Amino acid sequence: MSEHPGFTIWFTGLSGAGKTTISEIVAPALRERGLKIEVLDGDVVRTNLSKGLGFSKEDRDTNIRRIAFVADLLSRNGVGVITAAISPYAELRREARATMGERFIEVYVQASVEECAKRDTKGLYEKAFKGEIKEFTGVSDPYEAPERPEIRIESEHEEPEESAERILQLLEQRGLIPAAVTA
Amino acid sequence: MSEHPGFTIWFTGLSGAGKTTISEIVAPALRERGLKIEVLDGDVVRTNLSKGLGFSKEDRDTNIRRIAFVADLLSRNGVGVITAAISPYAELRREARATMGERFIEVYVQASVEECAKRDTKGLYEKAFKGEIKEFTGVSDPYEAPERPEIRIESEHEEPEESAERILQLLEQRGLIPAAVTA
Repeated sequence: MSEHPGFTIWFTGLSGAGKTTISEIVAPALRERGLKIEVLDGDVVRTNLSKGLGFSKEDRDTNIRRIAFVADLLSRNGVGVITAAISPYAELRREARATMGERFIEVYVQASVEECAKRDTKGLYEKAFKGEIKEFTGVSDPYEAPERPEIRIESEHEEPEESAERILQLLEQRGLIPAAVTA
Repeated sequence: MSEHPGFTIWFTGLSGAGKTTISEIVAPALRERGLKIEVLDGDVVRTNLSKGLGFSKEDRDTNIRRIAFVADLLSRNGVGVITAAISPYAELRREARATMGERFIEVYVQASVEECAKRDTKGLYEKAFKGEIKEFTGVSDPYEAPERPEIRIESEHEEPEESAERILQLLEQRGLIPAAVTA
């Protein structure tokens, strides 16, 4: 295992947009290249770092700051980090970018609320539409789309494998990961 | 910079026992050997991971679990971590040890409450004695001393430099750090 610079792939997008699906293709592909990878997805973080926090703006901001704090600690030590929280607020993503600089790769996974609701097997969107869940991003809570993400993925028009491949290519181009070994 | 296994030096002891003083000698000494080191001291963690938590048993446990979660993430990726929170409860330290296994090095910094109070420049012990601070470890809140720490330091009878040296030696013996380069 050789030293490499460390980076954070910062997924952002609505619940159901495809963040986790794509990250689950990217993570093993990176590990296959001999890289140290840690995935900080929404659930892991809510359990281990942010238990007790709700979904008000203040609590969401605290949650995102904690993810950024841990992602920075890891990535500045050569670890490749993947975060997959909704992270709806532009200001907080800017903060994370300011902390991590060149190591920060923002990946915006875009899909319409209608499409996300269609994919939703837990029925969360339905409950949000009925007002049974308050502060649901994209329905009753804001989502501020990134203006200049490193990568923009329209998950209604692109297969997750293609999206993952584009992410790997960007990391290669930036010298953050070694080129794939071709057989 | 070469790969090394990663570890967590887990200081525990009363406020004023000398945890931070010793860690501030150990950290640069480890960095000098070309190792990646992160220090998670009480203040850093309270600010970045545990804002809003108090000093009840429940809140202290949550704080320690978060430190252990982050220390594990870092140390399993080859980073040397130093934590310096009081961590008064044996059960939580056992939990951290169970998570990190061989990577976990518990360093108990022992000093009497009287001595800690004497060293205290912020007057916290005085306030605690008067009952103005509740839940103050060693005065109005329990401290459960480790029974079998990897290293026990009696900071009233040992200079911080000697304590630091003992820690480095143990890490060397366990193969967690390379031997010092002798000129």
